[in-house]
Amino acid sequence: MSRRIRLGMVGGGAGGFIGGVHRMAARLDHRFDLVAGALSSDPARAAASAVECGIAPERSYSDYRDMARKEAARPDGVEVVSIVTPNHLHVPVACAFLEAGIHVICDKPLASTYEDAQALYEVLERAGRLFVLTHNYSGYPMVRHAQELVTQNALGPLRVVQVEYAQDWLARNVERQGVKGAEWRTDVARAGLGGAIGDIGTHAYHLMRFVTGLRPESLRAELSSFVSGRSLDDDAQIMLRFEGGARGMLWASQVASGHANGLRLRVYGEKAGIEWLQEEPDRLSFRPLDGPAQTFIRGGHGIGEAATAATRIPGGHPEGYLEAFATLYREAADKILAFETGTPSPDLPGIVEGLEGMRFILAAVQSAQNDGSRVPLHSADA
Amino acid sequence: MSRRIRLGMVGGGAGGFIGGVHRMAARLDHRFDLVAGALSSDPARAAASAVECGIAPERSYSDYRDMARKEAARPDGVEVVSIVTPNHLHVPVACAFLEAGIHVICDKPLASTYEDAQALYEVLERAGRLFVLTHNYSGYPMVRHAQELVTQNALGPLRVVQVEYAQDWLARNVERQGVKGAEWRTDVARAGLGGAIGDIGTHAYHLMRFVTGLRPESLRAELSSFVSGRSLDDDAQIMLRFEGGARGMLWASQVASGHANGLRLRVYGEKAGIEWLQEEPDRLSFRPLDGPAQTFIRGGHGIGEAATAATRIPGGHPEGYLEAFATLYREAADKILAFETGTPSPDLPGIVEGLEGMRFILAAVQSAQNDGSRVPLHSADA
Amino acid sequence: MSRRIRLGMVGGGAGGFIGGVHRMAARLDHRFDLVAGALSSDPARAAASAVECGIAPERSYSDYRDMARKEAARPDGVEVVSIVTPNHLHVPVACAFLEAGIHVICDKPLASTYEDAQALYEVLERAGRLFVLTHNYSGYPMVRHAQELVTQNALGPLRVVQVEYAQDWLARNVERQGVKGAEWRTDVARAGLGGAIGDIGTHAYHLMRFVTGLRPESLRAELSSFVSGRSLDDDAQIMLRFEGGARGMLWASQVASGHANGLRLRVYGEKAGIEWLQEEPDRLSFRPLDGPAQTFIRGGHGIGEAATAATRIPGGHPEGYLEAFATLYREAADKILAFETGTPSPDLPGIVEGLEGMRFILAAVQSAQNDGSRVPLHSADA
Amino acid sequence: MSRRIRLGMVGGGAGGFIGGVHRMAARLDHRFDLVAGALSSDPARAAASAVECGIAPERSYSDYRDMARKEAARPDGVEVVSIVTPNHLHVPVACAFLEAGIHVICDKPLASTYEDAQALYEVLERAGRLFVLTHNYSGYPMVRHAQELVTQNALGPLRVVQVEYAQDWLARNVERQGVKGAEWRTDVARAGLGGAIGDIGTHAYHLMRFVTGLRPESLRAELSSFVSGRSLDDDAQIMLRFEGGARGMLWASQVASGHANGLRLRVYGEKAGIEWLQEEPDRLSFRPLDGPAQTFIRGGHGIGEAATAATRIPGGHPEGYLEAFATLYREAADKILAFETGTPSPDLPGIVEGLEGMRFILAAVQSAQNDGSRVPLHSADA
Repeated sequence: MSRRIRLGMVGGGAGGFIGGVHRMAARLDHRFDLVAGALSSDPARAAASAVECGIAPERSYSDYRDMARKEAARPDGVEVVSIVTPNHLHVPVACAFLEAGIHVICDKPLASTYEDAQALYEVLERAGRLFVLTHNYSGYPMVRHAQELVTQNALGPLRVVQVEYAQDWLARNVERQGVKGAEWRTDVARAGLGGAIGDIGTHAYHLMRFVTGLRPESLRAELSSFVSGRSLDDDAQIMLRFEGGARGMLWASQVASGHANGLRLRVYGEKAGIEWLQEEPDRLSFRPLDGPAQTFIRGGHGIGEAATAATRIPGGHPEGYLEAFATLYREAADKILAFETGTPSPDLPGIVEGLEGMRFILAAVQSAQNDGSRVPLHSADA
Repeated sequence: MSRRIRLGMVGGGAGGFIGGVHRMAARLDHRFDLVAGALSSDPARAAASAVECGIAPERSYSDYRDMARKEAARPDGVEVVSIVTPNHLHVPVACAFLEAGIHVICDKPLASTYEDAQALYEVLERAGRLFVLTHNYSGYPMVRHAQELVTQNALGPLRVVQVEYAQDWLARNVERQGVKGAEWRTDVARAGLGGAIGDIGTHAYHLMRFVTGLRPESLRAELSSFVSGRSLDDDAQIMLRFEGGARGMLWASQVASGHANGLRLRVYGEKAGIEWLQEEPDRLSFRPLDGPAQTFIRGGHGIGEAATAATRIPGGHPEGYLEAFATLYREAADKILAFETGTPSPDLPGIVEGLEGMRFILAAVQSAQNDGSRVPLHSADA
Repeated sequence: MSRRIRLGMVGGGAGGFIGGVHRMAARLDHRFDLVAGALSSDPARAAASAVECGIAPERSYSDYRDMARKEAARPDGVEVVSIVTPNHLHVPVACAFLEAGIHVICDKPLASTYEDAQALYEVLERAGRLFVLTHNYSGYPMVRHAQELVTQNALGPLRVVQVEYAQDWLARNVERQGVKGAEWRTDVARAGLGGAIGDIGTHAYHLMRFVTGLRPESLRAELSSFVSGRSLDDDAQIMLRFEGGARGMLWASQVASGHANGLRLRVYGEKAGIEWLQEEPDRLSFRPLDGPAQTFIRGGHGIGEAATAATRIPGGHPEGYLEAFATLYREAADKILAFETGTPSPDLPGIVEGLEGMRFILAAVQSAQNDGSRVPLHSADA
Repeated sequence: MSRRIRLGMVGGGAGGFIGGVHRMAARLDHRFDLVAGALSSDPARAAASAVECGIAPERSYSDYRDMARKEAARPDGVEVVSIVTPNHLHVPVACAFLEAGIHVICDKPLASTYEDAQALYEVLERAGRLFVLTHNYSGYPMVRHAQELVTQNALGPLRVVQVEYAQDWLARNVERQGVKGAEWRTDVARAGLGGAIGDIGTHAYHLMRFVTGLRPESLRAELSSFVSGRSLDDDAQIMLRFEGGARGMLWASQVASGHANGLRLRVYGEKAGIEWLQEEPDRLSFRPLDGPAQTFIRGGHGIGEAATAATRIPGGHPEGYLEAFATLYREAADKILAFETGTPSPDLPGIVEGLEGMRFILAAVQSAQNDGSRVPLHSADA
């Protein structure tokens, strides 16, 4: 067994959602030990949460800078830190740890402002440490399979992409009703310029980019704030142009009554189309132009190496969200070990994808503010 | 039983698709007798097709003007004519019959040019006859139920509409391979300015208008011709603004590998969302914001008057496309009888919806030609 | 066009369900003219129903014997009669018409007693006329395709069959609440010895026989009458043995809350399994042991001759129950014309299938009455 | 946070499937530390697997008796042991640990013979320790919700149960092709008298018992061995009678081509029916007799306490098999802590359910050997 990696966490105190997810994801494959945390900026809450997480009291911090400094100084200090704070803290926290020589696993979107994101890029360049951005949907085995089908040209040249992420939890003004996750997500100071576009639109955008490899050229966006009193968008409708002529539509909504996490990707090529739905993640529809539709099942027939490597249990016994998230953590562990020995390791979403996501948010906001004008949208690798 | 109405048909000779559909639809409820036809402009083919349809040889015509004149002169002449020709003939044929005092049932879109459509409008005004446009998807019971739910405010004020019509039969250059229906549909002279946007985009647009009653304000469109050598669009992506602030996306594609007739409508209001898919027409998903999702079944529990009136057999025994089409024919028969007695009759898609569809096509084409500029799009009733 | 066949009907007056279905089915393909009927034994109701159906008053009868005699004497008399009465009348009516030289299309089950069924068999032998039993589910294109897959050995030798027909309309004592169809179906005098087993179990049994060709060897049955005050079974659970070692389970229930017409067939062979569900009839799942699951769509890719011949419109535009029923009528028309010229015609469910169904009902009842004892069950062709 | 419990494991060395599942399940909620194991009876393989699992070398054993003795003697010895061996070892291993005062978590079925099962029962009585049987499907939140609906009488008195567990991985003679899990499962010496009936039939049976609470009265069974050369059953078809008159069918097959883990439960009561499918575990269909069908979603609207307590993340982000399994482990941890303090703790499947499962296997085998004779089948609590 590979040795377990010492993990710290910033944010994720009791009551939040995503902190617990990161912890379960880190634990599932037994590759990390959570040994330190600044789980809250409130000392008492931080301490209580630390106990809850099995972190020793002396390694519970309420100030992340303090934590970065002290952990860096310990021989058994954390090797990597997970950042699960609201968006506006991603960059300062990441910079503190990177500058202390500690790798970073960070929730998305990368930052609340593009300036912050660029600053992080520069710090990261200097620090020479690893940075993983948890675009967790790319950890699903059938998303990996979808990517492999595209890469192997099973769809032929791509023509059309339809991607959407539909939720309804912000269909009412829950930010005024004490729902903590809603409060910061609808607050420009903490979330950044994007509401739905930043919170879930970036997931949809990354998923589309991850599977298709298509490089975006420009977009037109319509952002709406349907709920009275809300300043950030809660619904985003976007038309995309890709290099080479492919076209796409992206819809991200947090007011789509009846949807929980309706992230759906459809890709159409000259030879075949595919469809994947996050709420039924173990299946991938493959619809060739010249034959009956096929349903690929995780762990089933016709599944390639990429999906298989991300699979824990046989097909028909569902894996879900936590497993996909855990795959990113497992791969981050591999990456950290490879980093130490200087060996190559697989790609994971990181700073490049983070900058792309920020450019996407900004382009959408800019377009929407100009009545849907066309805004160029180069991919980071363009 | 109501007396049967004498029906004629123009177009629809052997080999086509939609002519047979109209005939089965007219027959199902025993409200029409098909007694005359100009099924083809080729006399021999017209005659052979007439025999096939049980039309007496002396009432088979190869010239629709001839037919209109002679049938109008017969005491037992046709009372109504179904027009199932390529688009560019809809208006001249309709005018010929209307001017001869004969009601018209016409396939969509209304015309191949907006000028033609306007000309028809004027002829119709003068003729004082009935004109029914077969936006047949509005004949599905669960589409009627969807409309009723909206009307009864079961969804609350509407916010977002997502509508799409995805096919793949034009994903290759079949118009060069002798597929007759593809030939004229991809030919601007016969189809008009719209390709996919005209052929199926108008269906999606009408369905959305029919169910939601939302009045469009403007659109931005991206039209693509993915298949080499094709001049008309085979993929249309559109963002819509509605009066009152609702927003919509419409996608119509004939190159979406793996889709046959994927007409799907989703409507989201403040209180609930609905989803309907033409390929599973007997079901309607209703997803309230505050309770578990419900599935309404044609003929099942909780179905209102509108859907019930359009239902022939109990739930669980599927009705399909022909039944929905037949419902329009049945209602056209009711309308013709009501016309005779001057009694009121239910609305059916007609000239107003036809003009709206034409405006939609033209606005989309105009927008696409201007790089997706915003084009106003008033509804006919605006 | 083939000449239209003169059709009569016995039963099916206003208020019933299945009479209207037969009439629409007969009409859809324009192969029959309904010209005479004994739609009710009540003269006034018969006459009113006849008007409703477009039958001339002088050819409306209230006594089927009268009708058989008089129609046989007319030069333009009916060539075939559809029998849509309660079960106990099937045989006397059929005999009257067969003895008058008139072909018969009869609803299922064949009879209310096995003695009646045998008597019919003998009359039919003597009469030398056609007899079609409307096991209408065998008219669905994808059921035909399923049969073809089995015949072509795409499943390999068959091992297991699971078939069920679940309804809930008799989950309450509706026969005491004036539901006419429930009254006679729960009355041994009119329905015969079988309740659910006769009404829908025979459909499930026939479907299984039709698709698999497996020859039953024996059964064990558990029949229940869950609704208080009901004497006939409303739920039937059966284990079947087939020649050659295949095994099957059959469930027919009219008290299965939440099911409308849940007729489902699953067949498993050494190489693949298939699944078909009547409520989504245009699809057939094909699941090979060595590859991803495939979904065959009516009118889509990979569909063989049998299904194609039973298809009216392209895939993606749903056909339903009436179309499947109409296919039996169309084939009955072909059979009648072929009979006249002595040419061969395709098989349709008839007396053999009717007798098999009766044996199935009786075996199930006999087994259930003996605590689920094993009862032999030879197929008619065994 | 509750203190972590010291866990040992017997069986589950590299190459197996279920050992890894138990380890991930134990880890997910951070309630256990795996500190000792007899992962294989082969010392080298045991040692290698121990390293893989993070177990210290000195606590890796190759003899479970040795492990029980030594761990019981350590102050930091394991408090509970997970048994993940082939069936025939469950009882001897469990007895060794129970007699050493160590709690047991054991895979199902309880034993390979009923005598063994009874012996275990007696040992357990004497030992006064906890015994948990991992009928893991009862850990799914929507299974808990189904049980709650039944308990709250939302279905009314129950009439019919349909349960099935369909797999296809034994559709070929893979036990001769080196598939280890197939070897012992098809070997009467290691699996016991039941093949499919023991391996998956017991899961289906327990699921049905868990959700409905119905007490079985008798069964008739048909067991088949379709694959040539196999002595144990690979397909089981069973008809069940319950106290109070409800009736059920149970099908368990490992030769059902196209199914991976098709565990499906349907329950029909006087007021409503429910359906749950393991392959889509986050959903539960609820179909009232008097309203439209509803779909309950884990984490969604209308979900009661039982399911909520078993839920880790919000609805729409799928949980799967490992999470359900982990819930049993979490509850086992609660139970162990409660045991120490003498406080009450929730029920978990244990010896009673294990004995019931054994009786079910034996009754099915006995019935099948007597041509499907009726065999009484009392529940343990009867």
